[in-house]
Amino acid sequence: MIAKTDAAGARGLLPEVLAFTSSLSQDRALLAEDLVGSLAHLHMLARCGIVARDDALKIHGALVDLWTRAAADLWSPQGEEDVHMAVEAELTRALGEVAGRLHTARSRNDQVALDLRLHVRAQAAGVLETLGALLSKLAELAAAEVATLIPSYTHRQRAQPVSLGYVLAGYGAMLARDVDAFAFALDQADVLPLGVGAISGTSLPIDREVTRGLLRFARISQSGIDTVGDRDFALDFAYATCRCLLHASRIATDFVDFSSSEFGFVKLHGELACGSSMMPQKRNPDVFELIRGKSGAAVGNLTSLMVTLKGLPGGYNRDLQEDRGPVLASGPLAKGVLGMLRVALENVTFDHQRCAQAASDGYTQATDLAEALVKRGVPFRSAYQMVGTLVREAQRGGVALSDVPLALAQSVDPRFDAELLAAAKPDEAVLRKETPGGTGPRSVLAQVEQLRGAAARAGRLAAATPALDHLFHALKERPL
Amino acid sequence: MIAKTDAAGARGLLPEVLAFTSSLSQDRALLAEDLVGSLAHLHMLARCGIVARDDALKIHGALVDLWTRAAADLWSPQGEEDVHMAVEAELTRALGEVAGRLHTARSRNDQVALDLRLHVRAQAAGVLETLGALLSKLAELAAAEVATLIPSYTHRQRAQPVSLGYVLAGYGAMLARDVDAFAFALDQADVLPLGVGAISGTSLPIDREVTRGLLRFARISQSGIDTVGDRDFALDFAYATCRCLLHASRIATDFVDFSSSEFGFVKLHGELACGSSMMPQKRNPDVFELIRGKSGAAVGNLTSLMVTLKGLPGGYNRDLQEDRGPVLASGPLAKGVLGMLRVALENVTFDHQRCAQAASDGYTQATDLAEALVKRGVPFRSAYQMVGTLVREAQRGGVALSDVPLALAQSVDPRFDAELLAAAKPDEAVLRKETPGGTGPRSVLAQVEQLRGAAARAGRLAAATPALDHLFHALKERPL
Amino acid sequence: MIAKTDAAGARGLLPEVLAFTSSLSQDRALLAEDLVGSLAHLHMLARCGIVARDDALKIHGALVDLWTRAAADLWSPQGEEDVHMAVEAELTRALGEVAGRLHTARSRNDQVALDLRLHVRAQAAGVLETLGALLSKLAELAAAEVATLIPSYTHRQRAQPVSLGYVLAGYGAMLARDVDAFAFALDQADVLPLGVGAISGTSLPIDREVTRGLLRFARISQSGIDTVGDRDFALDFAYATCRCLLHASRIATDFVDFSSSEFGFVKLHGELACGSSMMPQKRNPDVFELIRGKSGAAVGNLTSLMVTLKGLPGGYNRDLQEDRGPVLASGPLAKGVLGMLRVALENVTFDHQRCAQAASDGYTQATDLAEALVKRGVPFRSAYQMVGTLVREAQRGGVALSDVPLALAQSVDPRFDAELLAAAKPDEAVLRKETPGGTGPRSVLAQVEQLRGAAARAGRLAAATPALDHLFHALKERPL
Amino acid sequence: MIAKTDAAGARGLLPEVLAFTSSLSQDRALLAEDLVGSLAHLHMLARCGIVARDDALKIHGALVDLWTRAAADLWSPQGEEDVHMAVEAELTRALGEVAGRLHTARSRNDQVALDLRLHVRAQAAGVLETLGALLSKLAELAAAEVATLIPSYTHRQRAQPVSLGYVLAGYGAMLARDVDAFAFALDQADVLPLGVGAISGTSLPIDREVTRGLLRFARISQSGIDTVGDRDFALDFAYATCRCLLHASRIATDFVDFSSSEFGFVKLHGELACGSSMMPQKRNPDVFELIRGKSGAAVGNLTSLMVTLKGLPGGYNRDLQEDRGPVLASGPLAKGVLGMLRVALENVTFDHQRCAQAASDGYTQATDLAEALVKRGVPFRSAYQMVGTLVREAQRGGVALSDVPLALAQSVDPRFDAELLAAAKPDEAVLRKETPGGTGPRSVLAQVEQLRGAAARAGRLAAATPALDHLFHALKERPL
Repeated sequence: MIAKTDAAGARGLLPEVLAFTSSLSQDRALLAEDLVGSLAHLHMLARCGIVARDDALKIHGALVDLWTRAAADLWSPQGEEDVHMAVEAELTRALGEVAGRLHTARSRNDQVALDLRLHVRAQAAGVLETLGALLSKLAELAAAEVATLIPSYTHRQRAQPVSLGYVLAGYGAMLARDVDAFAFALDQADVLPLGVGAISGTSLPIDREVTRGLLRFARISQSGIDTVGDRDFALDFAYATCRCLLHASRIATDFVDFSSSEFGFVKLHGELACGSSMMPQKRNPDVFELIRGKSGAAVGNLTSLMVTLKGLPGGYNRDLQEDRGPVLASGPLAKGVLGMLRVALENVTFDHQRCAQAASDGYTQATDLAEALVKRGVPFRSAYQMVGTLVREAQRGGVALSDVPLALAQSVDPRFDAELLAAAKPDEAVLRKETPGGTGPRSVLAQVEQLRGAAARAGRLAAATPALDHLFHALKERPL
Repeated sequence: MIAKTDAAGARGLLPEVLAFTSSLSQDRALLAEDLVGSLAHLHMLARCGIVARDDALKIHGALVDLWTRAAADLWSPQGEEDVHMAVEAELTRALGEVAGRLHTARSRNDQVALDLRLHVRAQAAGVLETLGALLSKLAELAAAEVATLIPSYTHRQRAQPVSLGYVLAGYGAMLARDVDAFAFALDQADVLPLGVGAISGTSLPIDREVTRGLLRFARISQSGIDTVGDRDFALDFAYATCRCLLHASRIATDFVDFSSSEFGFVKLHGELACGSSMMPQKRNPDVFELIRGKSGAAVGNLTSLMVTLKGLPGGYNRDLQEDRGPVLASGPLAKGVLGMLRVALENVTFDHQRCAQAASDGYTQATDLAEALVKRGVPFRSAYQMVGTLVREAQRGGVALSDVPLALAQSVDPRFDAELLAAAKPDEAVLRKETPGGTGPRSVLAQVEQLRGAAARAGRLAAATPALDHLFHALKERPL
Repeated sequence: MIAKTDAAGARGLLPEVLAFTSSLSQDRALLAEDLVGSLAHLHMLARCGIVARDDALKIHGALVDLWTRAAADLWSPQGEEDVHMAVEAELTRALGEVAGRLHTARSRNDQVALDLRLHVRAQAAGVLETLGALLSKLAELAAAEVATLIPSYTHRQRAQPVSLGYVLAGYGAMLARDVDAFAFALDQADVLPLGVGAISGTSLPIDREVTRGLLRFARISQSGIDTVGDRDFALDFAYATCRCLLHASRIATDFVDFSSSEFGFVKLHGELACGSSMMPQKRNPDVFELIRGKSGAAVGNLTSLMVTLKGLPGGYNRDLQEDRGPVLASGPLAKGVLGMLRVALENVTFDHQRCAQAASDGYTQATDLAEALVKRGVPFRSAYQMVGTLVREAQRGGVALSDVPLALAQSVDPRFDAELLAAAKPDEAVLRKETPGGTGPRSVLAQVEQLRGAAARAGRLAAATPALDHLFHALKERPL
Repeated sequence: MIAKTDAAGARGLLPEVLAFTSSLSQDRALLAEDLVGSLAHLHMLARCGIVARDDALKIHGALVDLWTRAAADLWSPQGEEDVHMAVEAELTRALGEVAGRLHTARSRNDQVALDLRLHVRAQAAGVLETLGALLSKLAELAAAEVATLIPSYTHRQRAQPVSLGYVLAGYGAMLARDVDAFAFALDQADVLPLGVGAISGTSLPIDREVTRGLLRFARISQSGIDTVGDRDFALDFAYATCRCLLHASRIATDFVDFSSSEFGFVKLHGELACGSSMMPQKRNPDVFELIRGKSGAAVGNLTSLMVTLKGLPGGYNRDLQEDRGPVLASGPLAKGVLGMLRVALENVTFDHQRCAQAASDGYTQATDLAEALVKRGVPFRSAYQMVGTLVREAQRGGVALSDVPLALAQSVDPRFDAELLAAAKPDEAVLRKETPGGTGPRSVLAQVEQLRGAAARAGRLAAATPALDHLFHALKERPL
């Protein structure tokens, strides 16, 4: 192991110390990133004349060979304290002393920052792709349901009649903001850290712009002392995951409720519903419950990172290695939840009749009636009070607001008339709300267009981000 | 209290219920936001012909009067469950039934979202202003210290000699990323929520673009059902505050350490150092400790918001009122810490001699020596091992690396010569690292320029955001 | 200000530094704790001959006078950096130099630890008292509802018929564990920190056992260097509050759902239900939503404390001052939620008919049928499959499980007979589950007894903890 | 897969749904717990006559066989959605329909609660054992260093001279409180959940006391509806881990600092110190940094659990499956850190000379001088000011407090004399602080005794908790 060589005058670490400090079990997952980063670094060293072309060719060949063997499951990083050392050790076995030229003008501090940034950038792109597909699906479903009545809820009480398309487009609007958050995380990750050495740069004539171009980063990092201790890009990605999974948790709560016997708005297809080991009649919305529950892991990951970073001294500290768990978990977590949410939406059926009945039943159109009075010149608060009294009287008589007899209404206030009472039809209440953001069908279709725009943006961002294997193949083919 | 009127058929809430549910003690802090929002709403209602000009003029006058009286401490919101109801009640006392026209086409759900967005937008701008001033100060200090030697640290061990300017510019580089984070939060807050009513829009002919223009928001919100339940802008602001205060906690740890007897790099001025109630000799860095400690409050605020949001059903839920504590705390917290950090930097003196001595003392230039060998063609890993052996020999002999006799070096490896050993002079080690991100003086001055750019950007963003009193005066003067 | 005296050779702190570092706005709330602690310390100093009796009498009188004036709102701590210094300054104004004897053998480090421990101990007792009252109420309600049918839920799907008493006793069982958690927090707080000085003890002949006895602490702290930096007791209290408020959040979710139109199990009394500013028909369960939402503040407080403590060096660090916000918030938060939960339970009515109908409607008794088959010797998994098939057939035929005709059952499996099908009556399904922890009425009454035991234990713990004013009066009367 | 059988009328789950919902990759780690729990359940079923002895013997044999094959790596749970189903499927392959008798009167809801409680109980015991060993080591080290001088620190400034034994015993006192916290977690886990079925109990004549006795739980759970949704025992264990790892993070910060060039108090042995990939001279305290950093994972685990639990409806919800990650991580995390801390303490050497020099150098004895004045009758605050002035004069003259000439002292105040100045000798300052909790040698030895008591208590608690393989062997041998 190179990090504990004779050079350092050490007799080797205690086995339990090595086990405790090793990150290999986790950062083995970063092998592709490490090899791609090393290839780009090697190209730069050769181009700048720091490593001779002959030596560079040998190392290049060995790195390509490692990728190929790893892809074929013929080799995996073993026996060293981390993936970087495992690669260097394997290169040394293959090439001897010349392998030692690869680590020129590089430290594990900037190397691990590179691997992590490559990882987060690729994962953020993957999440954006999954998110875009989900938004497209929501747009499609919402567009199909602009005429389906359903109650909206505030305080989990029926509030106002809306269309199901409006509800679904609302989920989309919430998730569309996550495109912004992951785009921010992607941009913050899109910075080349390599080239600052252990902390203060290097005295060798490297050219960081070359490496940046090869790895297609947007910018290079500004200060070495900051670069090696910085995990903001990981925080930003973990935060975007949190925000997004909190959104998913809220959608999941709705679907858990909507699929209960009490609501009965949604029926889960058999391929989606889970059973019980003891109660043979159950068709449970486990998928939505797990989506909801996984917000815990997201918040845990972010908190974990924040606590680890808190109060660290300047420069690099080994504490940072504890980033590995939360960073590696975040991408699969977000992709898993968003992908499953799309699958779940494809495997449920809304019961239009029960939705419409719930929207009609009761008093959810009270505000519409009040607004109709406002159009007649009644101050809103007075109209609110008139309608409030009418609702109470109707409740006492056991009659829905849409069925209130004119006589009853006029006994509350003579200003009520037949035209006004028509405002209390749920379907008309929906049709009438066409200002932007409202539940009227044209308004919802405009919202659907915005979702499509957000989906397209997510897709573009994902597509513009180079995949690791794409980078590898480009570097493999590029002449040294 | 309007929310509990005869209209709702209620006999009034239990006093303990009212006390438990009231948010007035907290959202009293949102009075300016509420009045500005109401003025803009009123303008729109009048422009759209929903409220007659005469009525609008009366309400306008009463709102302006409330602002004036509140500014002169002659009135404050009292006796209602929240600031919105307190304002409406006061308007009703002044104007009677006509006051009831203000709440037309508005719900507390979109109104509170508006107040919070106005608040977060203004606070984010304030933080950016404070952050810009801090970055300017760091740029100035860094530029002045490009020639001061100090050790850099990894693992809290002396690592490589750098300039103090490099260290300070590194703090700046870290904080410059917070300009990005607060700019993101500012942009996410910059969306008009008003006009979506309780959840589904309104049947009245409002024009949200008018309100948006008056309040100078960048966009209007997309979906009402999402708008009333959305607190992402608060999360984003709380998150930016977390990230920034975690940075501050790390800088603070450095200054706490640097001002210890052991490091002795920094002397706190008397106006900054705190005493002890029991130990008369103490000059304590309490300011930096509190800066470090306040990262706890920042993370707590973010966590609190995330937990409150988790798993909420769609639409508005009263749980959201619990946003008030963390949202109102975040701005002052961030501004307080960043402002104090700037004051603290102005009230410390670096002991150049002790800094330089620590940089020279020892073996921090070992990498430079290895890189000098690389320039001679030795593979880095071999050079690393040669220098490692030399360091051990020097340590055994009790001699600093910069003072190693040629004979000793050559006994380790004959390839060492006098020119090579000169690479081990700390000042030259610094001068030689001029690639971007390095500690060389030209490189640091380039970093300083980047800090100035970030400071200027922060200042521009802050200046472009309308202040609440500016909005008020514009609305006050604008003809209805 | 004493902490920044001539003794320390300082010209005084910058005003912004003083504002930033002052804790007075928060620890003013600890005045009673500070005065009680000082009185006990003074008694000990006098008893040990460290302060002469005459001087002690003067200081004693001035401390008692301060308490009296503060109680009458004639004095409050002002103008110093914290409550301790404000008290010492006021004593000095009254007594001159002799006031300076009170701080003998004491540091603010152990003094603030004492104030906080006195505070947490009293608050934990207060929470236990409130929790005991809530448990008693749940016991009473549960006992009254052992015969009311309601469905139990898993995955928010109707699972098995139970009694409402069982549901309520289940809430109680959950909250009864919080008696354990608060008892643990109370015990951890019940340790005298005073007497360890700034960090290492004192050379004066104090007797910590005397102070302990006067303040009725269970033990004295073990090590000074640990004592001044320890906030575990605050963490434990914040954690107990978290765990308890998470429980409350779950109960609140049930009540929010149960009071929806869809469930319709619970009707909120008018004194408990909140209205809407826009929708006159609403009767919203805001109380339960706020109970649910306040779990966010609890988790935020705990996280805040943990982050602040993370990685602090040994001994006292000023970062610890940031404990003040979370510590002072936790007690009122827990008492507020638990008290309101009790009030809310007193102001709701269960709709027995709807509850029973939901329990009968459907297939929640499937497990009972399977268990009846087990009693006949069918392996459970086979019985599970038989009943599962029967449920599917019944669903296809639109018939509830309790109404399945014998012929249909026998067409599924000839082993079904009339006696077996009787197991599918919901009320019998409940009556039959009398093993401990089950929903049978005798079992539930046993659970009620356990709740009464937990309530009594909570009450005893609260009663055994001395109140601050009780301590004050005892110290006031005690001869020096 | 049994949970998705024909009985439920399902065509089987979508593969991506199965992948998303499966917990097998995690709960495979609970195989031992599951088998032990099933054996005890089977014994109870047989004893109560619910499963015939012949059938029970077959199942018993198959369960023992599974344990044996799993122990020999000849079988592991595969191909089902969780470990429970994998075991049942394997039993069914071996035994056919009779295997279906094992799940009688049991649900996965109470079964998983049992597995988790068995796991947490065993892990808590393991942590206590590790913690006990660490406390013993600290006691031993502290006892050996009662005469070694070192400065104590407040605000990271030298505060007062203490013994190194006092510092080490202080760490011990902090960690001794974690014995309390893990004991609490152990006790909360020590409750049998099995026997409450899916949520409401069972109609079969089970005897939970029998199962309790076989598994050596202290109590049985009180209410089924609570039991299946309760994860408090997991929270308590995660919380104890947090509190303990926060302690470890603070000790780690001290050792990171103490091993810096600047402090130079501690030298890491070669077997403990890590190297650098770029800087050959480095001997880094990575072990302590990782110990510090792992507090992040602990807080993340706790937060994750709390967020997942927040706001869940009553009863069992599948969200609870997300407990698996944090629960399974906590034990190894705590044991890893505590075990490594003990190893680290065994592999460092304190530099007594540098410690003593730091304690003598300067003004850390100022409080002792002030207390000596108090003994002469000077009020403490006046003495504090006299000594403060003396310190300033000594600093101006560049003389340490222990070397202040009498003339200088008397020029500050004539009350200073030679005997008083002797109080400023660091070693005497230590010797004089013998009150409980102080740094005097007898006091420290008393603290060491308390540590030994805590270590013994931790060991006893661990030893009293049955290990899983012990339970297995007892159940294996026990006649049915």
